[in-house]
Amino acid sequence: MANFTLDPRLARDTTLLTRLGLCELRLMQDCRWPWILLVPQRDDIVEIFDMTPLDQTMLTFETAITAKALKQASGCEKVNVGALGNQVRQFHLHIIGRNSGDPAWPGPVWGHGQAESWNEADRSAFTERLLAAL
Amino acid sequence: MANFTLDPRLARDTTLLTRLGLCELRLMQDCRWPWILLVPQRDDIVEIFDMTPLDQTMLTFETAITAKALKQASGCEKVNVGALGNQVRQFHLHIIGRNSGDPAWPGPVWGHGQAESWNEADRSAFTERLLAAL
Repeated sequence: MANFTLDPRLARDTTLLTRLGLCELRLMQDCRWPWILLVPQRDDIVEIFDMTPLDQTMLTFETAITAKALKQASGCEKVNVGALGNQVRQFHLHIIGRNSGDPAWPGPVWGHGQAESWNEADRSAFTERLLAAL
Repeated sequence: MANFTLDPRLARDTTLLTRLGLCELRLMQDCRWPWILLVPQRDDIVEIFDMTPLDQTMLTFETAITAKALKQASGCEKVNVGALGNQVRQFHLHIIGRNSGDPAWPGPVWGHGQAESWNEADRSAFTERLLAAL
């Protein structure tokens, strides 16, 4: 898509899994939670109200289908959705699968401890299940 | 609206400011941040994908106008938006004004320290600015 450059920190911390109509769907490089980022392929978006109404609607539908697929693929108990952007201003939406007793439960995952790398077999298996569920 | 009962914990922690087309717009009883909750006036919604596509679209537009009004009324640097629901399962969306150096910056506000009560004058003034900006 024209005019879209991914923030270097988002590029470093996540892996592209697929592109939806509006967003890149990326996997966080942290196996403690099933953790997806949606990044609208638009430049200069910081807040949700910087998007056009059509893009806002697209984002909502992509959020809903991703959240549903994540719940199905991970069997998580609850989905957390959040757009913070305190550290990286390019608009990005987190979609995270949560379970009672997970490392940060019931608190938020952001800023909690240190990321743990996926092993390749687990990442492949999870990614395959997620993309099948989308 | 028929068939809507607010969760008692949300009722205890927040104050109704107004009703939008879909959501109750409520103020968190914590003056550390300008902190709004949107609660869709529908029963049995836990995840965003439990809503109809029309309700999802309404929620998105109400989120955008509330976030924009919050930024305008508070002069905040960044807006954080999140739907977690790990503790209260009734769907509710947080919209929070953030600034460099605020009590939890740059981390998330959820679960951070203890809530501090608004004084009545500050709350009235903020509420008036927010409703005017909506």
